[in-house]
Amino acid sequence: MERNVYLQLVRPEEARTTWLARIAQLTEGPGTEEVSLEQAAGRIVAEPVEARRSSPAFHGAAMDGIAVRAEDTFTASTRTPLTLEIGKNAFWINTGQPLPQGCNAVIMVENIHVEGDGSRVVTEKAAFPWQHVRKLGEDIVATEILLAPGVRIGPYELGALAAAGVLRPTVFRKATIAIIPTGSEIVPLLQATDADLNAGRVLPEFNSLMLSACIGEAGGQAVVRDIVPDEAEAIKAAIIAAVDDGAHVVLLNAGSSAGSHDYTAEVVRSLGEVLVHGIALMPGKPALLGTVTVHGRQTPVMGVPGYPVSALMAVEEFLLPLLAAWQKRTPACRERIAVIPCNPLPSRPGMEERIRVRLGMVDGQCYAVSLPRGAGTVTSLSRADAIISVPQDSEGLDAGKPVQAELLRSRSQIAHALLAIGSHDNTLDYIDSLLRRNYPQFSLTSAHVGSLGGLLALQRKQCHLAGSHLLDEQSGIYNRTAIAEHLKGIPVMLVHLVEREQGFMVRPGNPKGIHTVADICREDVRFINRQKGSGTRVLLDYELRRQGLAAAKVRGYGDEEYTHMNIAAAVLSGRADTGLGVRAAARALGLDFVLLGTEEYDLVIPLAYAQDERIAALLNVIRSAAFRNRVQAMGGYDVSRSGEILWEYDGK
Amino acid sequence: MERNVYLQLVRPEEARTTWLARIAQLTEGPGTEEVSLEQAAGRIVAEPVEARRSSPAFHGAAMDGIAVRAEDTFTASTRTPLTLEIGKNAFWINTGQPLPQGCNAVIMVENIHVEGDGSRVVTEKAAFPWQHVRKLGEDIVATEILLAPGVRIGPYELGALAAAGVLRPTVFRKATIAIIPTGSEIVPLLQATDADLNAGRVLPEFNSLMLSACIGEAGGQAVVRDIVPDEAEAIKAAIIAAVDDGAHVVLLNAGSSAGSHDYTAEVVRSLGEVLVHGIALMPGKPALLGTVTVHGRQTPVMGVPGYPVSALMAVEEFLLPLLAAWQKRTPACRERIAVIPCNPLPSRPGMEERIRVRLGMVDGQCYAVSLPRGAGTVTSLSRADAIISVPQDSEGLDAGKPVQAELLRSRSQIAHALLAIGSHDNTLDYIDSLLRRNYPQFSLTSAHVGSLGGLLALQRKQCHLAGSHLLDEQSGIYNRTAIAEHLKGIPVMLVHLVEREQGFMVRPGNPKGIHTVADICREDVRFINRQKGSGTRVLLDYELRRQGLAAAKVRGYGDEEYTHMNIAAAVLSGRADTGLGVRAAARALGLDFVLLGTEEYDLVIPLAYAQDERIAALLNVIRSAAFRNRVQAMGGYDVSRSGEILWEYDGK
Repeated sequence: MERNVYLQLVRPEEARTTWLARIAQLTEGPGTEEVSLEQAAGRIVAEPVEARRSSPAFHGAAMDGIAVRAEDTFTASTRTPLTLEIGKNAFWINTGQPLPQGCNAVIMVENIHVEGDGSRVVTEKAAFPWQHVRKLGEDIVATEILLAPGVRIGPYELGALAAAGVLRPTVFRKATIAIIPTGSEIVPLLQATDADLNAGRVLPEFNSLMLSACIGEAGGQAVVRDIVPDEAEAIKAAIIAAVDDGAHVVLLNAGSSAGSHDYTAEVVRSLGEVLVHGIALMPGKPALLGTVTVHGRQTPVMGVPGYPVSALMAVEEFLLPLLAAWQKRTPACRERIAVIPCNPLPSRPGMEERIRVRLGMVDGQCYAVSLPRGAGTVTSLSRADAIISVPQDSEGLDAGKPVQAELLRSRSQIAHALLAIGSHDNTLDYIDSLLRRNYPQFSLTSAHVGSLGGLLALQRKQCHLAGSHLLDEQSGIYNRTAIAEHLKGIPVMLVHLVEREQGFMVRPGNPKGIHTVADICREDVRFINRQKGSGTRVLLDYELRRQGLAAAKVRGYGDEEYTHMNIAAAVLSGRADTGLGVRAAARALGLDFVLLGTEEYDLVIPLAYAQDERIAALLNVIRSAAFRNRVQAMGGYDVSRSGEILWEYDGK
Repeated sequence: MERNVYLQLVRPEEARTTWLARIAQLTEGPGTEEVSLEQAAGRIVAEPVEARRSSPAFHGAAMDGIAVRAEDTFTASTRTPLTLEIGKNAFWINTGQPLPQGCNAVIMVENIHVEGDGSRVVTEKAAFPWQHVRKLGEDIVATEILLAPGVRIGPYELGALAAAGVLRPTVFRKATIAIIPTGSEIVPLLQATDADLNAGRVLPEFNSLMLSACIGEAGGQAVVRDIVPDEAEAIKAAIIAAVDDGAHVVLLNAGSSAGSHDYTAEVVRSLGEVLVHGIALMPGKPALLGTVTVHGRQTPVMGVPGYPVSALMAVEEFLLPLLAAWQKRTPACRERIAVIPCNPLPSRPGMEERIRVRLGMVDGQCYAVSLPRGAGTVTSLSRADAIISVPQDSEGLDAGKPVQAELLRSRSQIAHALLAIGSHDNTLDYIDSLLRRNYPQFSLTSAHVGSLGGLLALQRKQCHLAGSHLLDEQSGIYNRTAIAEHLKGIPVMLVHLVEREQGFMVRPGNPKGIHTVADICREDVRFINRQKGSGTRVLLDYELRRQGLAAAKVRGYGDEEYTHMNIAAAVLSGRADTGLGVRAAARALGLDFVLLGTEEYDLVIPLAYAQDERIAALLNVIRSAAFRNRVQAMGGYDVSRSGEILWEYDGK
């Protein structure tokens, strides 16, 4: 019954070395094949490629002009021009044409005068031997080695192969990876209906899609096989069938842990050997590495966890190095840069952890904001700019201390992105999209830590701007008091983004009859709150106090979420009866909305960046009709003053 | 008649801006399309992608165990264990399954004890609400923006799309680029016979192959059309046909200059407008940018030069940015690093120049050795590690002064390569191949500047090792005198690589009857020499002096080549009657060989690198049977002492 307890965690590097060494004893991999040049792009050279032809294949003209024997022209000078006879000791020639027998130089057409009927030309300058001539073998001499094993054939290499007459280079065959999805509850993605998904009756299978793309990019060929239920015999049969069909590696997805419904280890053991079961890696822990012997053929097998992030991490960590080894290459490595975590990144000692982060370059320093760390959070990969690895012996990384990160985007993309840290608003994502559409070099990265967190990030100079909607309870004015309090010495401008409706999200038809702040204090109402420091939380507390209501009376007051959308999701699922948030979020999930009031959502931008072309582009986008129309269509927003500069704070 | 004179050279950046701005006025490009997720890998997002489903779609277990209502467990502790009843207030649940109605937490299977018949379980710890639960919308909330326009869909993005139920994302259509090869002398690569090629009767067409691969990597789709002869009307008809067939861009290859057989400008002008004709870029100068109007449809057109390096540079410089603009992206940019040129890189002022270089990291500094700069030298691309751009206003770059270079290989590949500068020997290429095959992380980059040049590079600490065969004319001993003279203060080891036969290469049958050194002084014999500082040149001078022969008597003594293979090519082509070189080079090109003697070819390796694992790998390779067998098969080599350490020099 116990789970994971049986996993003997092995360090990722040790696991990889063990598996690869064992495989190297068993098989050389998929071998080699000859391909035509049309099919060679992207393939990996398997044998040293020797030139079959020399290039150029003859002495040819490198310029348009006349071909001559250089020695015939040695007397030519400005004072003693030399006349040559076409067809006798001078021959018209175009670039690329072979020199006539006996010629060893070309005089450019610009440097000769044609005389009379064109049968003679005059030159005032001697030609030196081999002037403007592309000599035989100047580029390639037959039999020389052109390309070494392990080299990827790209456009440049294709040119060299073609020029050298190597029309069918020998490349490594692509490894076939059989992906076997297992699990009694999973169905092919296209067959999953919304109704079944929402009820939790099925889980859509899409790991095979991600893993196939990943394998394809690494030069392998994934074959996705039919889904197999959680039954040992069925899984065993599926492995045997995959090997029979020629798979070079079998990959079982899910069932690789040690739970009651995890059969991978048992099945692999019955067909061969389990070399590693459990990796000291997060995400990716319950992975399995082994080999199976089917009809005498020994084939590597790996079991990867069901959570998509774990599955991908396990494939990147173990399968891609195997594919690279079979191609006599090192695995593609990502560019690394030093980044400074904005927040502490605690980590479990004994486990190597891969933390996905967003990045922003602020004043020459690269700052990292961590994304959700769950193994099921696939958007933590798609939104990530980089991955930070926390070493196994570490209890985590400190905020503010530089660490190395592996880039998922180009350095230039990171350098051209604006980093917004602060309150979350859906319109930020539209700003990013419009920015990229109109200024493809720019983008907006946003990290959500609440309004106050944004101001503190600005104070630490860790971002370019902050979204904020902090109400001053005394004056009823937004943001200015908080700015003056937290941004001493940092002059900023306060740019109005939107006016937005805040209110209670409730299930359709408002079954609990929630109409006022007092209603959320009722015993039969379960509330879901926003985190401390968020503008919405400030608004709630302000309203509670204004109406003399005690926070302690609100059931769920301590239950926090970080975004409007998550509040909406909590209400939709019945986890709470209501929560406070913007109308757009309620509308997005089909919830009803009880208006509490409107609030101002602004951007706080240091004046130091006022002339930055990215900020100029951002302001253009915010002031564009495209932005206003799109936001208006979302509902609950007033964009009539979007982009207005409300206030300049001098930092004093 | 004049050529190039009519080209009004425009700066590359200005040319690009002009062309792209004009195209932006005319067309939005190929537009968008919806594709299935199976087809979406590698495509570019065209519209902001909104999530269609939330993920998870329900509150589900994040661990195997029992689902409970957290509030029911608050009294549980080690001292007051709590018994729960299966089916009543506790429910067995596996990872991923939905929580039963009313439950809001999961207790891990490790933390419970099953009692008696299994109908009851005991926990000693309270569960907090939402413990081990993946909440609805925790990863993705329906309607939120998942991916912005311009984002490339890779494995991670596929996962996000699938999880969010976006099964047919909108991506940019691939632009179709019609490549029209022009030229009366060119034939399809596969139809070019060796006989026709060697006689210069035809030129093989393979630029389309390179350009297609380049366009494909940039997300376009090349369509190679039939070869068109150099006739204005035929070229015009080919453009019209390509546009009729749906090309988004027409690319004419060759004929873009201003010579008598260059029709691109004339034809484009007759169909539309020539915006730029001539670029201040080397290679790539005679390129043309314009648009044509066919049946009312306006289509970008570009003419690129016939030399392969020029053609590729022009496509990278102008077409790839157009494809990127149509996809709302910035063109893929290469990583840049600071490199130190080992040799001066003169350049013509007024022209921006792209110099292909090989790189080596020596003691933390990255050194660059330039490759041949001719526009026809396609191996200058396939052998390049990086490209250095010399700005338009510069007369060139100084040796020893750091400059920026664009990497064509990964930083890690560069860091793991050994850089050999010195004399050329074909066995170096086999060492590289064997090194990569046995140690895929390592490689050997070699640059050929002659033996003395290699020692000088070692002296300047610009390489890891040098190949050398410098004969001391007094002692008859190789390399030691030169090392002691040039490497003061740098302790090195002298590692024997091969003993090789040097002799005169002559055309088959030895028509000029060359048998002795005296024969090359004959009036009827044309010689081809190696460059000063090369060991072969030293050998020749030694033999001439020894026999009392004057160098001035040797016709062609001043005509120099840099490698054995180029000497062989010069003899094969009749450019010279004979030259001195190794037997393997003669054999490779089917020449006869008149043995002059054997010489020692050694590697000079600083003791500072003796413990470097790359050097250890190199020595293993040199001492391997695979190396010996391969080199013996080349002929003219004695490998019986390969890898022997001949001498250690203490630098004093």
